[in-house]
Amino acid sequence: MKRYKCKISYDGTAFHGYQVQPNKRTIQSELEAALTKLHKGREVKVTASGRTDAGVHAKGQVIHFDSDLSIPLSRWQLALHGALPSEIAILEVEEVTLDFHSRFDAIGKEYRYFIDNRKIRDPFQRNYSYHFPYPLDLDRIKEACTHFIGEYDFTSFCSAKTEVVDRVRTIYDLDILSEGEQLVFRFRGNGFLYNMVRIIVGTLIQVGNGEIRPDSIPGILEKRDRTFAGKTAPSQGLYLWKVFYE
Amino acid sequence: MKRYKCKISYDGTAFHGYQVQPNKRTIQSELEAALTKLHKGREVKVTASGRTDAGVHAKGQVIHFDSDLSIPLSRWQLALHGALPSEIAILEVEEVTLDFHSRFDAIGKEYRYFIDNRKIRDPFQRNYSYHFPYPLDLDRIKEACTHFIGEYDFTSFCSAKTEVVDRVRTIYDLDILSEGEQLVFRFRGNGFLYNMVRIIVGTLIQVGNGEIRPDSIPGILEKRDRTFAGKTAPSQGLYLWKVFYE
Repeated sequence: MKRYKCKISYDGTAFHGYQVQPNKRTIQSELEAALTKLHKGREVKVTASGRTDAGVHAKGQVIHFDSDLSIPLSRWQLALHGALPSEIAILEVEEVTLDFHSRFDAIGKEYRYFIDNRKIRDPFQRNYSYHFPYPLDLDRIKEACTHFIGEYDFTSFCSAKTEVVDRVRTIYDLDILSEGEQLVFRFRGNGFLYNMVRIIVGTLIQVGNGEIRPDSIPGILEKRDRTFAGKTAPSQGLYLWKVFYE
Repeated sequence: MKRYKCKISYDGTAFHGYQVQPNKRTIQSELEAALTKLHKGREVKVTASGRTDAGVHAKGQVIHFDSDLSIPLSRWQLALHGALPSEIAILEVEEVTLDFHSRFDAIGKEYRYFIDNRKIRDPFQRNYSYHFPYPLDLDRIKEACTHFIGEYDFTSFCSAKTEVVDRVRTIYDLDILSEGEQLVFRFRGNGFLYNMVRIIVGTLIQVGNGEIRPDSIPGILEKRDRTFAGKTAPSQGLYLWKVFYE
């Protein structure tokens, strides 16, 4: 038995998120169906670095699975690729030791969030960025960003449905990679809670249009209550960009 | 009554082409539904520079329509925009004289065709370019391109279903705008027949992978028979980029 680690990319538009759900089309169920097909009907389980929600995309999700097929490493990528729908791509395959675990071994993640700030929407971007056609004050947004960097209890900035008890996470960087008509936020941290990036982005947008003051962020963090933060930005602007391992 | 000329863009993925068809979702039917809504139920006809097929996109389609609504010119764009689905955008609106006609006055068109030549497909490009993962010899393709420039009877390079009798068209330029992993063809001509760009591109791809000789193009043109040309490249790589007027 060998363990394989894969870097994958997907367009999340038409999926009900990453995780298997009964009678729903998900990334995990497509991956497992493809592997089961390659294994002539034997079920193969896939484990990812974490879930992504419906409509959320991935440029660098990481998964692992075990197989005893005698496919040479160089052939795995195309073999798996060919068994998957065109919305999922296998970017890299490597053989890892049997103790590698895509979720437990991940030491950090990078997410990016894309906002189209033009007045007139771009039909080709409608599933791939959030169209926000109103003015945004970037200086206010940049000031607010600084308050998220560091180790905090992010209870105010995760879904009220979050089941995890320990909500302390560290954001290493929160950068704006592109300004002007397309605004791109880059988040790097040791882990992210359910909806955390989308709620931070939704809050930053409300900072940018004047509804929330940049210096109110520390107070919102202290409340540890979702109702004090801003709106949840929509899923289509969010990309799981990279997963970091030792 | 005033006549308005609009430059529009659309993602053709989920439409059955431009032209109205019974019980099908088309660009024209969405435009007419939006205008009829703005006119409180009175039917408004829309005329375009030409049709586009199912799955074909537009970055600069031109349409015109008449209206007696007292909407100021500066407001038309957002008014119409707001009544349309997010797959269609109104890029420009101008008032024109009542004798302007988007189809009859067009003196030329530009189409672009996008090919993704990487081995591994990009999930985000699957509806927006043609994924052709095999090697292409660009020198052969460039040589073949030169044979299409000029005035020819393009019967061999249009659908056998073409109803137009006069199949003489002039291609002014056929350029390769981008090489390498993404190959972009730019066609400029005085008019294009049904499937003409897609059949030329399909033929150029077969020239690039060695199936058709570059110097066989003049002979294929002379045959005036669709069966001598190459395959029809798929719709999702094609964009109506610009329509030219005097």
